[in-house]
Amino acid sequence: MPRQIKALFFDVFGTLVDWRTSVARETEILLKPLGHELDWLAFADAWRGEYQTGMEEVRSGRIPFSKLDVIHRCNLDRIRPRFGLDRLDETTLVKLNLAWHRLDAWPDVAGGLTAMKERFWLAPVSNGNVSLMVNLARRNGFPWDAILGAEIAGDYKPKPRVYLASCDAFNLLPADCMMVAAHSNDLKAAAECGLQTAHVARPNEKGPGKGETAPSMRVDYAASDLQDLARQLNG
Amino acid sequence: MPRQIKALFFDVFGTLVDWRTSVARETEILLKPLGHELDWLAFADAWRGEYQTGMEEVRSGRIPFSKLDVIHRCNLDRIRPRFGLDRLDETTLVKLNLAWHRLDAWPDVAGGLTAMKERFWLAPVSNGNVSLMVNLARRNGFPWDAILGAEIAGDYKPKPRVYLASCDAFNLLPADCMMVAAHSNDLKAAAECGLQTAHVARPNEKGPGKGETAPSMRVDYAASDLQDLARQLNG
Repeated sequence: MPRQIKALFFDVFGTLVDWRTSVARETEILLKPLGHELDWLAFADAWRGEYQTGMEEVRSGRIPFSKLDVIHRCNLDRIRPRFGLDRLDETTLVKLNLAWHRLDAWPDVAGGLTAMKERFWLAPVSNGNVSLMVNLARRNGFPWDAILGAEIAGDYKPKPRVYLASCDAFNLLPADCMMVAAHSNDLKAAAECGLQTAHVARPNEKGPGKGETAPSMRVDYAASDLQDLARQLNG
Repeated sequence: MPRQIKALFFDVFGTLVDWRTSVARETEILLKPLGHELDWLAFADAWRGEYQTGMEEVRSGRIPFSKLDVIHRCNLDRIRPRFGLDRLDETTLVKLNLAWHRLDAWPDVAGGLTAMKERFWLAPVSNGNVSLMVNLARRNGFPWDAILGAEIAGDYKPKPRVYLASCDAFNLLPADCMMVAAHSNDLKAAAECGLQTAHVARPNEKGPGKGETAPSMRVDYAASDLQDLARQLNG
């Protein structure tokens, strides 16, 4: 028998929003009128490719916590020479970095979250910072009760502190909370903290056919999308 | 000419919710069936009367930060002998402490916030903890973009850190944010951090005729309630 669930915590990049085609699109919208021509999807992949490296500096304690906007900017500066973008001015770079605030949700997300909102407390537990989460919520209609995650915890997933600080903010035991993600490593870390787990398939997250279709570990729920998860939880 | 405002930060106890009659009601609902008879409003006043003392322990650095639920419980234990409540069991005390999660909003609040939501980012910047804020939001329909305030900042208003950490979470300069409160001391502290200020009259907060009808300092806006503030800001 499933244990009682009071709160659902959501991974965001990949699980709720399609970062890849959104970043490619936003980059093209900004840079094409300035005369740049590049492989926009490859650029998005390269930028995301630096993601773990940037956060690992914080997780390892080599640098103090800084919000994901700052890490995205450092990663941008690291990759842009590879794409012939050495000479962008600061105003353009600031705008470009905000591409991550303009990501579109997968089509099932807003409806799925709304279907789960009455019964459960809902929060993103993402490595994205608060303002980035607010922009994505406003753009896509995510009905959050609060913005939890890395910036609140002062560290990055999969460090236990991020999951545990989120439970604590809701005055809940880890066993009363469920982490929802399209990434097995995120769910594994949450399970090790005592949270319940739900996997959502995002088979095209990193490109056609490049995403997790099923979890690589035992989970409490495995869903094809958020509408499916809502049906399973409300059923 | 008023400066541009991007985010509105709200004090909650007294400004948005009527803590006094709500705590009195919730206490009566819980304790009367157990055979207790007391002056419920006086009890609410006494409990609230310990509020600043409890938080001052944290602000002064004498004790590490602990969330307002914990401080409310310590304050409850301090006052209850005065009301003949020495022998309540732990289960009842835990329930009683949650009276602060079941406060009703003043009638203008949900409509006023909704009217301001499209144009401004909205967050509580309260000394209340995240789970308390979520319960009040769900009960009263507060459409927050995020829950900011004391628990996020790790200190209590009117310490500058609480206002500044809230601006930082939204990636905004203090000058782009406005603190909204029914208490001049809260607005004074926010103004000293560079935030804009709006006063809301709550003439009956602490009992009939016992509340601020007007600010005791210069503010950017002075409103009779949140609907009035929404009209002034949208006008």
